[in-house]
Amino acid sequence: MTSVMLLSCPDQQGVVAATAQFIAGIGGNIIHAEQHVVGTVGEPGAVFFQRVVFQLPDDHDHAELLTAFEPTATRFQMSVDLRDNSIAMPTAIMASKQPHCLYDLLTRWRSGELRMDLRVVISNHPDHEDIATHMGVPFVHLPVTKETKPAQEQAVLETLGDHGIELVVMARYMQILSDDFIGNYPMRIINIHHSFLPAFVGANPYRQAHERGVKLIGATAHYATADLDEGPIIAQDTTHVSHRDNVAELTARGRDVETVVLARAVKAHLEHRVAVHGRSTIVYN
Amino acid sequence: MTSVMLLSCPDQQGVVAATAQFIAGIGGNIIHAEQHVVGTVGEPGAVFFQRVVFQLPDDHDHAELLTAFEPTATRFQMSVDLRDNSIAMPTAIMASKQPHCLYDLLTRWRSGELRMDLRVVISNHPDHEDIATHMGVPFVHLPVTKETKPAQEQAVLETLGDHGIELVVMARYMQILSDDFIGNYPMRIINIHHSFLPAFVGANPYRQAHERGVKLIGATAHYATADLDEGPIIAQDTTHVSHRDNVAELTARGRDVETVVLARAVKAHLEHRVAVHGRSTIVYN
Amino acid sequence: MTSVMLLSCPDQQGVVAATAQFIAGIGGNIIHAEQHVVGTVGEPGAVFFQRVVFQLPDDHDHAELLTAFEPTATRFQMSVDLRDNSIAMPTAIMASKQPHCLYDLLTRWRSGELRMDLRVVISNHPDHEDIATHMGVPFVHLPVTKETKPAQEQAVLETLGDHGIELVVMARYMQILSDDFIGNYPMRIINIHHSFLPAFVGANPYRQAHERGVKLIGATAHYATADLDEGPIIAQDTTHVSHRDNVAELTARGRDVETVVLARAVKAHLEHRVAVHGRSTIVYN
Amino acid sequence: MTSVMLLSCPDQQGVVAATAQFIAGIGGNIIHAEQHVVGTVGEPGAVFFQRVVFQLPDDHDHAELLTAFEPTATRFQMSVDLRDNSIAMPTAIMASKQPHCLYDLLTRWRSGELRMDLRVVISNHPDHEDIATHMGVPFVHLPVTKETKPAQEQAVLETLGDHGIELVVMARYMQILSDDFIGNYPMRIINIHHSFLPAFVGANPYRQAHERGVKLIGATAHYATADLDEGPIIAQDTTHVSHRDNVAELTARGRDVETVVLARAVKAHLEHRVAVHGRSTIVYN
Repeated sequence: MTSVMLLSCPDQQGVVAATAQFIAGIGGNIIHAEQHVVGTVGEPGAVFFQRVVFQLPDDHDHAELLTAFEPTATRFQMSVDLRDNSIAMPTAIMASKQPHCLYDLLTRWRSGELRMDLRVVISNHPDHEDIATHMGVPFVHLPVTKETKPAQEQAVLETLGDHGIELVVMARYMQILSDDFIGNYPMRIINIHHSFLPAFVGANPYRQAHERGVKLIGATAHYATADLDEGPIIAQDTTHVSHRDNVAELTARGRDVETVVLARAVKAHLEHRVAVHGRSTIVYN
Repeated sequence: MTSVMLLSCPDQQGVVAATAQFIAGIGGNIIHAEQHVVGTVGEPGAVFFQRVVFQLPDDHDHAELLTAFEPTATRFQMSVDLRDNSIAMPTAIMASKQPHCLYDLLTRWRSGELRMDLRVVISNHPDHEDIATHMGVPFVHLPVTKETKPAQEQAVLETLGDHGIELVVMARYMQILSDDFIGNYPMRIINIHHSFLPAFVGANPYRQAHERGVKLIGATAHYATADLDEGPIIAQDTTHVSHRDNVAELTARGRDVETVVLARAVKAHLEHRVAVHGRSTIVYN
Repeated sequence: MTSVMLLSCPDQQGVVAATAQFIAGIGGNIIHAEQHVVGTVGEPGAVFFQRVVFQLPDDHDHAELLTAFEPTATRFQMSVDLRDNSIAMPTAIMASKQPHCLYDLLTRWRSGELRMDLRVVISNHPDHEDIATHMGVPFVHLPVTKETKPAQEQAVLETLGDHGIELVVMARYMQILSDDFIGNYPMRIINIHHSFLPAFVGANPYRQAHERGVKLIGATAHYATADLDEGPIIAQDTTHVSHRDNVAELTARGRDVETVVLARAVKAHLEHRVAVHGRSTIVYN
Repeated sequence: MTSVMLLSCPDQQGVVAATAQFIAGIGGNIIHAEQHVVGTVGEPGAVFFQRVVFQLPDDHDHAELLTAFEPTATRFQMSVDLRDNSIAMPTAIMASKQPHCLYDLLTRWRSGELRMDLRVVISNHPDHEDIATHMGVPFVHLPVTKETKPAQEQAVLETLGDHGIELVVMARYMQILSDDFIGNYPMRIINIHHSFLPAFVGANPYRQAHERGVKLIGATAHYATADLDEGPIIAQDTTHVSHRDNVAELTARGRDVETVVLARAVKAHLEHRVAVHGRSTIVYN
């Protein structure tokens, strides 16, 4: 079996050795490891981050492994996340009317490209029921109005709970989630914003981009937090545009960037490659 | 000889035909032409833009050509710019201490890549006198303090005037120009801003970018206007960065983007490929 | 109505004026035009290419317009293609087992991004019948073996003929088409090759790329010709890869590039933006 | 002090732990480490690669450290390279007439961006003596003809030896080096090829690219080996071009890519980020 360990702790001597020794001690073989220090090594406040992927000759219970690792974790004041790397993550996709991100994620999931256990598609519109059903994913239609928003969010939360969801992907879901909702899935909701943040925060970024006469448009995938468009960024990209592109054309060009950027961020999260530090992320290779 | 005509007028029927007929009438051969309409064709307010490059069998005086074209221009309410496309544009570069954009423009100029008649390098620091002299360009050192700023700007303007400068390139010149100064060269001063505008307007964009945890950094070349960082954008680009890049590393990565973006914008201007409309540009291919 | 005219002829004086006059004469308003000369202007062998988009106040029969334009065309030895630009092009997609390009084109078509009249999906495998049907496109399953190849190609040609197809898109159709087949649709079949041609011509390009240790992989969309992988290139792109990417990972990364490049080429063709000259293309903006 | 260790060995259990323990044992603090396995973990033939950067509280002699590490290295059959990471690498640049790569490296070196101890510029033409001298780098002019080639290469080797050179950068040096010459600096000569290898191997790649009608051009930085254009690739990039770009324009566009790609490869080598395996490279982040 293959396991993945994500850890962080105050930067100090001996962390890598201690972790490597623990893994060797349980018969593990490190096949990939990457470290990163935020701040200046040797100075107060520096924080050490590490992702280690290792193989174990036999199956292990990861809860037991974590218990065995506890003395090391305590000694270095680590926060640790340890996972069986072969388990696909229970995931829900939320979408509205626009199909591009949803279709793309469905295609990648079906082709085996994503380590995702896609359990449900939730939408405030009925449009995508056919494709979800065709792909073999349960579809839950939960329409929403200004008045019914709290109740609808409650229904979404129940659906997520019923399916044991660990990751929520907002594939151009056009509703702003309440802080309460987000608080239930901290750093577990990935949103795609259709601009290169922090440019063009807020509504109609392609219209804003056209008015400003920019020569590039972009997209940003980030964790949803209470501060709209301010969550830690996971992936971004841009594409060249020109004066010939009107708002509709910018929107079409933008869809391609949104699609690729969201897929890249989701993939990184599913493979336990993302660590959050303040409002930044470390995205391990 | 090869001429280039940049024109704009209210969008209407027959403009292309009238211009093409005029050029055919003086024995010209159109070798490249590109049109663009801002707004919706056929609706009020639509503006027509065109760039035409044509060859004439013999030398012509461009002032006389313009006079000959006047009836057509008047008929369609055109603004017209007509140039001998083989004449290199009298240009000044302004720099401070950072060398990357200056050195790059000098190298491109020497290799014949830019249709630029580089007449003077002006700096508020003496550092680059050697390289300018080595390259055969007069170097004028005009130091500046808070107190001497109006006088220094006056001296810069005189230097530009003495050299018959038509284009001023701010190659990381680290002083904010006054509105008065800019008013002397409207849409004739190109600045490079070290971020993907409109993100990270103002000071220390790489520090801002690092704090926000972005995954891309960029650069923007634009015409200098009274509103700082708000002038019409000519060229932009971005490059991928990661959590491993600290502010110094972002700055180094950013220099590469700044260099390429500024060169691209300067080249477009020198070849009469840029038309300004409001706070946007049309950059012809 | 909006019309688009694609023309080419020996480079000579007065072509642009004559065409513009013709269009003005029938009451047309040129909204976009682009010229290109292959070779050196004024020297023998230079060829002039132009694409003109113009609006007409009333509906016209394009056959009649062509007849009216004949004297001009004859005078300048033009080849001309004249189309109603609002008519979606009758198109067939051919696919095998891999879904990514097919799904992407279906999604773009459904979102109205492509001026494509998608009439049929043809495949040598039954896998994609569901999705095609779900999307409302007839699906024709025409399996093929070495022995049945001529008969199967005949059946494909009949299907194309029955549907009045003008453009065939090979969306990762994994059969090599015979010269005879291709001869039926010259410059009317677009293929996606999963490498940056001319690197890694032939089979298993991602394996070849991995063995060579390249740091970029790419994709090429081109017209199918008798010389495999040698047809005129319409669009290409690349993406960065690293030593961490094994063949499977390169293949997954490559799928994203293939998808975007094929869509870009198909869009250009559908909008009459592609002219072929020898084994190169002019792709108008 | 900061040290960097590059190692490779047959893949096996316990390597990471043993190395980390050694570093902890000498009081070192690992600040960055990256592993990579070529082949399949747990199967015969798999090779383990690692780069470790660590800080030591006091200065150490690296030869002594290597001796102390020998038992670990022997036990795991490692090849090891251990360096003081603050020492700039003694480097020579070889150039011909084209200035772009040379000027760019000189500028980066002067701005402190490269950990390079630039000791000499060697050229078969006298053109760049001025700039080298201006920058404070000794310039050695060693002209070459078909007849004098062996003698000239001998003189180059002597110059390299006199200056204690460890890295030779061919910044568009337009002579083909003999196998003998290359044998003196295995994986120590970086060349820039002006195409996206393996496309357009050999002479005049931009002409070849133009004839083939490609929509991208590229550049490849690689170690020079006896097989021309077949050495391990360190860095590559491409840029979009169009039918409007003639051979001269492609060449100009290409210069920008060459410049950036060569600088990227040189930087990676200087920071001990490149490991060679067969004809591929591992380029650590």
